[in-house]
Amino acid sequence: MNDRTDSPDSPSEMITRDTAPLNVEMPFSSLREFITPNERFYVRGHFPIPEVNAETWRLKVEGAVARPLELSYAELRQMPGQTITATMECAGNGRSFLEPKVKGVQWDMGAIGNAQWTGVLLRDVIERAGLQPYGIEAILEGSDKGAIKEPPRPAGEIHYARSIPIKKAMSNVLLAYEMNGEPLTPDHGYPVRAIVPGWFGMASVKWLQRVTVTERPFGGYYQTIDYVYWEERDGFPTIVPLAEMKLKAQIARPSMGERVPAGAEYRVFGAAWAGENEVAEVEVSTDGGSNWSGAKLLGDPVPHAWRFWEFTWKTPSKPGKHRLIARAKDPSGQTQPAERNANHGSYMIDHWLPIEVEVR
Amino acid sequence: MNDRTDSPDSPSEMITRDTAPLNVEMPFSSLREFITPNERFYVRGHFPIPEVNAETWRLKVEGAVARPLELSYAELRQMPGQTITATMECAGNGRSFLEPKVKGVQWDMGAIGNAQWTGVLLRDVIERAGLQPYGIEAILEGSDKGAIKEPPRPAGEIHYARSIPIKKAMSNVLLAYEMNGEPLTPDHGYPVRAIVPGWFGMASVKWLQRVTVTERPFGGYYQTIDYVYWEERDGFPTIVPLAEMKLKAQIARPSMGERVPAGAEYRVFGAAWAGENEVAEVEVSTDGGSNWSGAKLLGDPVPHAWRFWEFTWKTPSKPGKHRLIARAKDPSGQTQPAERNANHGSYMIDHWLPIEVEVR
Repeated sequence: MNDRTDSPDSPSEMITRDTAPLNVEMPFSSLREFITPNERFYVRGHFPIPEVNAETWRLKVEGAVARPLELSYAELRQMPGQTITATMECAGNGRSFLEPKVKGVQWDMGAIGNAQWTGVLLRDVIERAGLQPYGIEAILEGSDKGAIKEPPRPAGEIHYARSIPIKKAMSNVLLAYEMNGEPLTPDHGYPVRAIVPGWFGMASVKWLQRVTVTERPFGGYYQTIDYVYWEERDGFPTIVPLAEMKLKAQIARPSMGERVPAGAEYRVFGAAWAGENEVAEVEVSTDGGSNWSGAKLLGDPVPHAWRFWEFTWKTPSKPGKHRLIARAKDPSGQTQPAERNANHGSYMIDHWLPIEVEVR
Repeated sequence: MNDRTDSPDSPSEMITRDTAPLNVEMPFSSLREFITPNERFYVRGHFPIPEVNAETWRLKVEGAVARPLELSYAELRQMPGQTITATMECAGNGRSFLEPKVKGVQWDMGAIGNAQWTGVLLRDVIERAGLQPYGIEAILEGSDKGAIKEPPRPAGEIHYARSIPIKKAMSNVLLAYEMNGEPLTPDHGYPVRAIVPGWFGMASVKWLQRVTVTERPFGGYYQTIDYVYWEERDGFPTIVPLAEMKLKAQIARPSMGERVPAGAEYRVFGAAWAGENEVAEVEVSTDGGSNWSGAKLLGDPVPHAWRFWEFTWKTPSKPGKHRLIARAKDPSGQTQPAERNANHGSYMIDHWLPIEVEVR
């Protein structure tokens, strides 16, 4: 269908952005399966991958609960389990598109994946400990740890930790031990990780070791200094922790810089997602955003999962450069912004991401 | 009394640490007056000093109040006024003592002063607007503004702003228009600044233009990213906005590196303060912290003001190097820590600050 060397039908290599910590993404142009194979699911780490022994692993549940408890891996697996499908996007996915450049892993578009996760509902675990009515957040702590380099930073080493509102914690958050039917690998949080459906990946804490229900908002490093954005509140720019994924469509094919045959039919293909909402529509522009056409949504909608889409582009007969853009809409008609919101810092890259191609 | 060239009886020059923004401190070795003369009071700025016309100046009072209002300078001056004495220390005072070096203005010990402030109680202004029972904080906004350079930063320019709990706002916070009987100078916040007694200087917002009562904790830049420290809460390092000044004593004389006559009586002299608490005692060590002797507290205690103290040191007959340290105690017997707390980042420098001198 095109002349790229990294044809989607060949086993395209994953792209390693960092080795310490390990940060790996899928070449998004190789998108094919609705369920991302485990070895093609992006990996984002903050510290060295901890070696955890499932035999001795314990999950502590404490804080604003009636009966603080510790669960072993065997006990967790004996609790009623369930399997959910959930798409997870790194909050910095698409960062390589930002101008001017910002600090952080220079993710292209592949820091996203969709998997089937099997585990126990966090709700069931918290209920076993007895939620106190004054608990307002649940802090999820991983066993990964290290020192923060730049101030403002706490002293010494810290564990990766994020909190979620208690309402979300008591709904559909999963403590997962399987990914696509296989035990988690160390890269993906073995033995147990959180899955927070609809939220950016930073909430789905890996190598989970502690759940602390709190009476006040959590002010940890990854809640206040990193993984935050700015929002106007009460007339002042105010820091807010990242949470839900934003409405977003990405073009997998053609890929950036691809040469596309003139006077032909080309299948533009990609995925779209909407956090806790639904994708109602995807539109494609082949002229940099002036005109838009509806794309065809593929398959059936799955809650918290991406939706694949396609669009047949009748390419011009004359050679030339073209900018392809896809944008998603939710059921209320909301769509993606054309321009970058500078208050998003280095995160939530949900504006139009043009793919430049050459027709010839 | 000693052979230093910057004798306290000569008009020692102020030390300019920065000109844009303006950051100036007093050489602490020149400490003499209980009330710091205006021109010897440290200046800390974040942005260019705004030019404010008192004729057109308005103070907005809004948010969780029954009747949002605007006050003119004349209206404010017509309200019942009062004069308070308050010591103000920059949260980074003493930063030049930190090892390893940290970012920020390299204040020695002179980013502190004590003045008489005349103005209107913030309480009276908020009561005029009608405090709503759900108001939990008051955000104080200055008219100074600029862009933050390093991420995480909000888009564009922001105004300097800090919040205080409503309980503090409704107690002794002053909206000051005079400093030691003179109208404020532009350096010190003309026409009106806040004075938050007992708190570090960052709370005493200059060039005040807006008071916003809020229903939720303020998450502005100077409340969450800058002017913060780390505290262990619920078992996690948590970011906390700086607030009260800490218990602290500083030695004004001898000064660092001073040569002190052997076999003589030397008057060690300095000041101590305790935030919203009282200084009950000051102790001096002339051997780097092994042995301590009580110093004499001078004058009468004044709430929220520093207390001067002196100690007669019978210097050794033999030449040698000595480390002098002063430490304060509060009425409960709490004293200053010997070592730096790394969770304080570049602020709250309240550990022992040794003054190295040479007896000869």
